[in-house]
Amino acid sequence: MSSTSSSAQTATPVLPTADDVRAAAERLRGVAHRTPVMTSRTLDERLGASVYFKCENLQRGGAFKFRGAYNAVSRLSDQERARGVLAYSSGNHAQAVALTGRLLGVRTAIVMPDDAPTSKVEGTRGYGAEVILYDKHTQSREELAAQLRQERAMTLIPPYDHADVVAGQGTAALELFEETGPLDALLAPCGGGGLLSGSALAAGAVSPGCRVIGVEPELADDATRSFHTGSLQTVHNPATIADGLRTPSLGRITFPLVRAHAAGMRTVSEAAIVEAMRFLWTRMKMVVEPSGAVPLAALLADPGAFRGMRIGVIISGGNVDLASACRLFADGEGGAA
Amino acid sequence: MSSTSSSAQTATPVLPTADDVRAAAERLRGVAHRTPVMTSRTLDERLGASVYFKCENLQRGGAFKFRGAYNAVSRLSDQERARGVLAYSSGNHAQAVALTGRLLGVRTAIVMPDDAPTSKVEGTRGYGAEVILYDKHTQSREELAAQLRQERAMTLIPPYDHADVVAGQGTAALELFEETGPLDALLAPCGGGGLLSGSALAAGAVSPGCRVIGVEPELADDATRSFHTGSLQTVHNPATIADGLRTPSLGRITFPLVRAHAAGMRTVSEAAIVEAMRFLWTRMKMVVEPSGAVPLAALLADPGAFRGMRIGVIISGGNVDLASACRLFADGEGGAA
Repeated sequence: MSSTSSSAQTATPVLPTADDVRAAAERLRGVAHRTPVMTSRTLDERLGASVYFKCENLQRGGAFKFRGAYNAVSRLSDQERARGVLAYSSGNHAQAVALTGRLLGVRTAIVMPDDAPTSKVEGTRGYGAEVILYDKHTQSREELAAQLRQERAMTLIPPYDHADVVAGQGTAALELFEETGPLDALLAPCGGGGLLSGSALAAGAVSPGCRVIGVEPELADDATRSFHTGSLQTVHNPATIADGLRTPSLGRITFPLVRAHAAGMRTVSEAAIVEAMRFLWTRMKMVVEPSGAVPLAALLADPGAFRGMRIGVIISGGNVDLASACRLFADGEGGAA
Repeated sequence: MSSTSSSAQTATPVLPTADDVRAAAERLRGVAHRTPVMTSRTLDERLGASVYFKCENLQRGGAFKFRGAYNAVSRLSDQERARGVLAYSSGNHAQAVALTGRLLGVRTAIVMPDDAPTSKVEGTRGYGAEVILYDKHTQSREELAAQLRQERAMTLIPPYDHADVVAGQGTAALELFEETGPLDALLAPCGGGGLLSGSALAAGAVSPGCRVIGVEPELADDATRSFHTGSLQTVHNPATIADGLRTPSLGRITFPLVRAHAAGMRTVSEAAIVEAMRFLWTRMKMVVEPSGAVPLAALLADPGAFRGMRIGVIISGGNVDLASACRLFADGEGGAA
């Protein structure tokens, strides 16, 4: 069993298609929130463009991650469900898998570092998951997860490099296009590339002329380099405030999808991310986490590139503790003075 | 002219009705945002109730005040419009009148204290208003406004004690009921009573069994005392963080409306207001100013009183600068420790 799955790991992966995104949308109907699309006259006047924000900070669990997790778990066999699912994440994917497990009656175990914020550990436990803490200086979460898979025969739900996860993430863009019609550009944050890949699949099917652009922090520009060089580049523990985008690289599924379907990549500075957060919080009255503000940062940094366009922006999540956000805003003010 | 208007001031005022609220809704159609109604599973489970938030923090200008200001100015004659309108406010009403003036092509002058936050002065000027600063230690804004009315023959748009302003504010509740159907209770913050009065008129017409409850800070409990004693009570510069509710008393129009149509009044502590803000920011991902969190504070403080009910809550606004909000959250954490 484990050797089969390990040989499957090295074979060429089967990539999801736009039909898989549509099928995921059916599975998520009535389960995921159909999140609102927001606009800002102030922003549109400033950019000379029309921007449509798909507000996944208002998704269940506070981030788009619920879409992919629910889609993946709901496709498991009864036997797999009975054995439970496993994830390693200290962020939004952990809560998404835990919430999915509660909704589908599937036992969940989440491997988290023992220095994860208490709020995230409590949030994950609050959804009924078993939280397994590890010391990231002495233990490898991959090894720990492998051990749990072997001992308990649980199914691992990876955060992005999985066809069903990618297809689920694409449903946010699908909903956005249903409301806006075709767009000239669609900007999504890029960490492991699940959201970007899924969004590009959706755009290709329903808004073929739309340029899908991934945005990541300058400090974590691995996907930009991978996109331009054609070979998989990595970063190691990048110090960006966009904690959702600190993933080391694109994945075996997301890299070819991004190369095939994204029109470009952009990077933004840390200061630009804080400025975009400030706009979203004060002008649009929305709590958005640093990763979720990254695409708007790209728009604000280079408005000339988007003038006259109709632009979709995926706001990926809103899970940030207030003390951390307040420190960012205070530092930003100090820096601006 | 000024003696006529001064004798009108002392006559029994004509009170607005539910029909005036409906007429205001027609005037505001396509001009005011039809703001979204949000819910929270977490909150509903905690309270054992169903709560529907009408999100006026997402209204134009960031608060419900635009509804009343626009309704009032749009009812002026061509001659009155040509002479311009005047308001005194350092808060949301100032920006609402300024924005209305820009939309209707009416000149606006706003009297503001010279220690008002720069962001609010700039925001008001940004909408094209003339800002007239005064020293609140040596000048009376009422006298200054009276002088301007005389010199320029401008029409004063008061922040709450005006039939057209009250009727405009009631349109938020009207929209809420259109989405939710009849409710058991509706909670609105109460400063001068414009929003509460208008909401009560709307409820009486479309959800007659609904108990409309005004909520104010314990530190600014004038309306609660007025409601219970039947005589107009006042407060003087209350030190509440809910800056929108620091008004000295109900008005000549709003007091009789609140007495006749509200079912009750509640007061909340400053700590409860911060707790409610924290819930709205972190769990519902919405930036809400202290005044806007006051009704939720009443629900969280006494959940037993609302168990099993369907409850509407008007979130009145989201205009708060991040530095001030961050200080409140930091103090709240210190206090809880």
